[in-house]
Amino acid sequence: MDAGIPPHGGNLVRAAREYGLSPRDFLDFSANINPLGPSPAALQAIRDNLWQIRHYPDPDCRELKAALSRYLKVDQDCLLTGNGVAELIYLLARVLDIRRALAPAPTFSEYGLAVKCNGGVMRYAVADPAGGFVPPVAELLRLLPENDALFICTPNNPTGALVERRELEQLLDAAAGCGAMVIVDEAFMDFVPEREQYSLLPRAGQHPNLILLYSLTKFFALPGLRLGALAAPPPLIRRLKEARDPWSVNALAQVAGTTGLADKEYMAATRRLVAEEQVWLRERLNALPGINVRPGAANFLLVDAGAAGCSATELVHLLGRRGVLVRDCSNFPGLRGAYIRVAVRRREENRVLVEALAAVLNGDRT
Amino acid sequence: MDAGIPPHGGNLVRAAREYGLSPRDFLDFSANINPLGPSPAALQAIRDNLWQIRHYPDPDCRELKAALSRYLKVDQDCLLTGNGVAELIYLLARVLDIRRALAPAPTFSEYGLAVKCNGGVMRYAVADPAGGFVPPVAELLRLLPENDALFICTPNNPTGALVERRELEQLLDAAAGCGAMVIVDEAFMDFVPEREQYSLLPRAGQHPNLILLYSLTKFFALPGLRLGALAAPPPLIRRLKEARDPWSVNALAQVAGTTGLADKEYMAATRRLVAEEQVWLRERLNALPGINVRPGAANFLLVDAGAAGCSATELVHLLGRRGVLVRDCSNFPGLRGAYIRVAVRRREENRVLVEALAAVLNGDRT
Repeated sequence: MDAGIPPHGGNLVRAAREYGLSPRDFLDFSANINPLGPSPAALQAIRDNLWQIRHYPDPDCRELKAALSRYLKVDQDCLLTGNGVAELIYLLARVLDIRRALAPAPTFSEYGLAVKCNGGVMRYAVADPAGGFVPPVAELLRLLPENDALFICTPNNPTGALVERRELEQLLDAAAGCGAMVIVDEAFMDFVPEREQYSLLPRAGQHPNLILLYSLTKFFALPGLRLGALAAPPPLIRRLKEARDPWSVNALAQVAGTTGLADKEYMAATRRLVAEEQVWLRERLNALPGINVRPGAANFLLVDAGAAGCSATELVHLLGRRGVLVRDCSNFPGLRGAYIRVAVRRREENRVLVEALAAVLNGDRT
Repeated sequence: MDAGIPPHGGNLVRAAREYGLSPRDFLDFSANINPLGPSPAALQAIRDNLWQIRHYPDPDCRELKAALSRYLKVDQDCLLTGNGVAELIYLLARVLDIRRALAPAPTFSEYGLAVKCNGGVMRYAVADPAGGFVPPVAELLRLLPENDALFICTPNNPTGALVERRELEQLLDAAAGCGAMVIVDEAFMDFVPEREQYSLLPRAGQHPNLILLYSLTKFFALPGLRLGALAAPPPLIRRLKEARDPWSVNALAQVAGTTGLADKEYMAATRRLVAEEQVWLRERLNALPGINVRPGAANFLLVDAGAAGCSATELVHLLGRRGVLVRDCSNFPGLRGAYIRVAVRRREENRVLVEALAAVLNGDRT
């Protein structure tokens, strides 16, 4: 492995090298991507707009920002698009000069890496597995005044736990009092059927201490193209924009995002499928010996294999040899034990996962 | 215009809004892109690999780096790929913490903007137009010890002037003595027929003070996809890689770059066409009243319209209304007078440019 890059889901090239298969031979449950793939309209728009490759992308992302503004109901001046949310996380750590940051754990490791990259330190408030990994809000409130920023992912990766609006508002109030920024990552919120009840979007761009991250790579299945956005008050948007090169969002990502956001049918079909399959997959996995899966609100499940008598790393390897990629959660901060994370896919694919895991647990090492 | 983004070539979206045309109606001479467009093999590879959109890109860019290493004859450990060279310029300014930088002028304005973005100051050594904009090497040598870095573009944008290898070696020697970094931008070197005589690639990754920038957006006509690279000693490559998010190069750019670099026929055809059309266009433009075009080594020409009695901004506007985009050079540091920059395109397109410019100079304001 190259220095500086931690293991992460979705690395098909490395998996192919490790297991001697082609990248296309894998069923990838390790990355939390919409099981329907990109919107058919978005794919068609990419094909129709390949001519744009030979021109510089629009640095202002006008059409994309207009589409985002309509969908998110956030003013365009409060939006910044990026080369994936990852670019924006690193940009925030740098421009806000985050030296002391706080996050509940376990959570997405990129926050901590971005803070470290800026020379800062991430402190974690560890959630209790026995309590369903509910974010420890009281502890976050207590620690917030000592920190420049709080990162909070809802629904959380990898636990799927949602944070209550009421609790987020408490955190925002506390942040306003102490000057900390609250960076709420809603990368998976689009998958949540009750998202209007949980999303902080109505406050985005309004509350001076709130930065809301929105990803288009997960729900719209565009991780290979890179596309993310954030919503924040306009003065911060301008500072962020001036702190990076002007052409960070490529032309095809702009086209795909704009088109995908208008494909209401695809969005509704995605939500139906994920809601249904999430339950189906959880029930089937829970029926396997030694496996314990808690409900999660998003398009992935955190699987506790602690009672099955093998480590997460072993499970990942044995499944990988069968062409089934799952995410080893050993490197999530604050997560001890044998956890793997699996994306919710289509029925026939989920069945392959359940059968492969059953065979592996049954001692079938072929 | 949005704050923080200077005018630049290739902004079709803004041009379309300004002149009331569709982006596809323009002949764009304002961006220095290969007139053949992307390699047909690269375009086919993009079509064949649209499935990759739904997977994370390879953060290590293995295939692309292998192809680059073969083509550039630079060790893979000495290469870093980026989301366009622009990303890498900003990354360098930040990671090297460039506070005092030096460049000959006129030159690509993004160097100065990146240094400013890092809180630093760019100082220019202005080249003499009467001397053909030959870079003022003696002045650069004199000023180098007071600076953290020297940016030098060869062939230079927008003048097309090449820097002699002997002079670059002098600058490298001086840099080794005073600890400055020399950042040589060879974004347009692939268009130069005698590039083996001028390129510093054989020294890239070897000389501790040399960083060489290589773009794939110009020669391979992929500005919309974003793709650039740099070559430097391995310890610096590792520092740069750790200072940004892991997925900055999207999957389609990786595919297009890898395929384009293997398309020798396209590369040879590009060099033949540009060499021939460069001469044709220069002669025809020089035949127009008040127009003076010096030879340049790359796929663009710097046009001095000072004797034609109109400003660069007027010319750009009058040509734009006719659907012909050229680059207003007013905002290039160190360039005074009525200069525009035009890309060299195919014969029938170059003819449209010559005729449009002739009509405008003739007072035809329709």
